[in-house]
Amino acid sequence: MIKCLDKLVVIGVGLIGGSFALALRQAGQVSHITGIGRSRQNLQCAIELGIIDDYTNDFPKALSGADFVLLATPVGQNARILQQIAPHLEKHTIVSDVGSTKQNVINTAREHLGNHLPFFIPAHPIAGTEFSGAGAADPALFKNKPVILTPLPENHAAAIDQVAFLWQQCGAVVSSMTPAQHDQVLAAISHLPHLLAFALMNHISMVSGDQAMANLQLAGTSLIDMTRIAGSSPEMWRDICLDNRDALIDKITVYQHLLTNLQDLLCQSNHTALEQFFTQARDTRHQWQATRKPIVK
Amino acid sequence: MIKCLDKLVVIGVGLIGGSFALALRQAGQVSHITGIGRSRQNLQCAIELGIIDDYTNDFPKALSGADFVLLATPVGQNARILQQIAPHLEKHTIVSDVGSTKQNVINTAREHLGNHLPFFIPAHPIAGTEFSGAGAADPALFKNKPVILTPLPENHAAAIDQVAFLWQQCGAVVSSMTPAQHDQVLAAISHLPHLLAFALMNHISMVSGDQAMANLQLAGTSLIDMTRIAGSSPEMWRDICLDNRDALIDKITVYQHLLTNLQDLLCQSNHTALEQFFTQARDTRHQWQATRKPIVK
Repeated sequence: MIKCLDKLVVIGVGLIGGSFALALRQAGQVSHITGIGRSRQNLQCAIELGIIDDYTNDFPKALSGADFVLLATPVGQNARILQQIAPHLEKHTIVSDVGSTKQNVINTAREHLGNHLPFFIPAHPIAGTEFSGAGAADPALFKNKPVILTPLPENHAAAIDQVAFLWQQCGAVVSSMTPAQHDQVLAAISHLPHLLAFALMNHISMVSGDQAMANLQLAGTSLIDMTRIAGSSPEMWRDICLDNRDALIDKITVYQHLLTNLQDLLCQSNHTALEQFFTQARDTRHQWQATRKPIVK
Repeated sequence: MIKCLDKLVVIGVGLIGGSFALALRQAGQVSHITGIGRSRQNLQCAIELGIIDDYTNDFPKALSGADFVLLATPVGQNARILQQIAPHLEKHTIVSDVGSTKQNVINTAREHLGNHLPFFIPAHPIAGTEFSGAGAADPALFKNKPVILTPLPENHAAAIDQVAFLWQQCGAVVSSMTPAQHDQVLAAISHLPHLLAFALMNHISMVSGDQAMANLQLAGTSLIDMTRIAGSSPEMWRDICLDNRDALIDKITVYQHLLTNLQDLLCQSNHTALEQFFTQARDTRHQWQATRKPIVK
C-alpha cells in the first residue's frame, strides 16, 4: 500500500540525499525528515535550507517511528552503516540506498540485515553533478533521470512499489533489472568512462609539469568535455571501482582490444576500416541522441 | 610589412575557412574574398551569408592578384590542392593552412611548392564545433582560441608576421612551435582523445543493437560529455589520424600501459594507489581549469 511518509531518515545529506529530501517535500510526500551525517556543519546547512527538520547521530532515536531510511553515503561506508542501523529498525521500515554498484551492497545487506531483508530495496538514481554537500541539493535533480531498482527475491512487493513511487514523485524514470545486469551495464556506461577520463588526464601530465600545463592551454573544448569527470571525487570513485572491480577489469580488457585494433589499422594505413570504425561510433551516438529523453542538465 | 589584404582566397569555405573570412571582414582587414570549393550549394550559401564576394573553380583566375590563400579543406586533400595551386601563385602570395597535423602538410608543400616555400606558413587554429559548412561559420569562433604556427626555416619572417597578425585580428592567441612538437602535443591533447571517444562509443555497442540503445538510455551527463566528439566527421578524423599515425600509435601504447596499471590496482584491491591515481588526475584538471584562458563556447 503506497503512502505518504510520516518520517524519512536520510543518512548522508549530500547532493543525492538532500535532493531526494527536497523533491519529496516539494511533492508533499513526507511530513518529517531527520538527517544523519558526519559533518555537523553540513547538517546545520541542511536545516537552514529546509532540507531536513532535525538531525542526530543517535541511531535508535532517529530510527524510531521511521517508515523510510535512505542510505546516501559513499558506497565504502555501507557495511558500517547497515551494521549500525540493523538493531534499531522497526518492523516495517523500508531501507533503500543510492549506490552506483549493487551486488556489493546486497551482499553487505544479506550479512547485516537478517530478517529485515524483505524491506531492503536496492536502488540507483543516475544523476549527479560535479558538486557535493547539502548546499548542492536541488529538488529538480532527478527530473527525467533514470533510477534503477535491483529488487531481491526476498523483497516485499509493496516495499518495492513504495520505493518506485517515491522516486517517481521526484520526477525520475524508474526501471528494474538484476543486480548483476546493473553492475555490468554501469561498468560500461559510467565506471569505465570515469577510468578513461582519469587515465587521459594522467596521460597528458606524463610530460614534465610545466610542459603539461603549457600543452593544456592549447586544448580545445573537446578535451575539456572529455575530462570533466576526471574532476570527480577520488574517494568516491575508488570505492565504486573496487566495488565493481570484476566487471571493470573485463571491460578494460575489451576496451584495450579496441585500441589495439585501432593501432593495427593505423599501422596498415587502412583508410577504409578506420573510417568504418569512426562511422559506426558516430552513427551510434547520433541514434542515441535522437532517441534519448531530454535530460535537465 | 603587415598589411590589410586586397584579395583573400579561401579554399574550402566551411566552418573554419568561413569563420576566418567573416572575422577578417569584421576586423576590416580584407577588401575582397574569393571562395573555392567542391559544393556549389555551399559556396552559394557563403555568398548569401556575406562570407565571400564571389567563387570559382578556375584556379588561375582565383589566384590572380591574391595576397593570401587559406587552405581550409580536410587534410587528406592537401596534396591535390597544393599541386593545383602551385603553378598559378603570384610571387608574394602567402599560403597558409588550418590542418590538425603539420609534418605531413609540410612534406607535401616541400614536394609541390618548390621556390614558393618561403611563403608557405603552416598554421593550426584549435577551434571547432560539431557543425560544419559555411552555414556554421561564426566570426567569433577564434576569440581567445589558440592558433599554433609551425614556421619553416625557409619562411620569410614578414610572411610569418603577416599570418600571425591576421589570426590575432580574428581574436586568436598565436604561438609557435616546431612541426614535430606540434604533432606530438596534438596527438596527446586532441587526436588520442578523439580515438578514445570513438572507441568508447563502439565498446558500448558491442552488446546486441537493441540492448546498446536501452543501456544508453540509462547513461548520465558524464557519458554524453565523454562521447560528444564521437559525433565528429569520420572522414576528417580518418585523415588526421593517418597523417599523425606514428605519434598516435605511441600514445595509444602509453595509454594502454596506464589502463593495465589500473587493472593491476583493481586486481590487488589497492585502495591507496587507486585513490592516488584519481587524485593526481583531479588535481591536474583543477589546476588546468584554474589557469586556462576563458574559452567562448
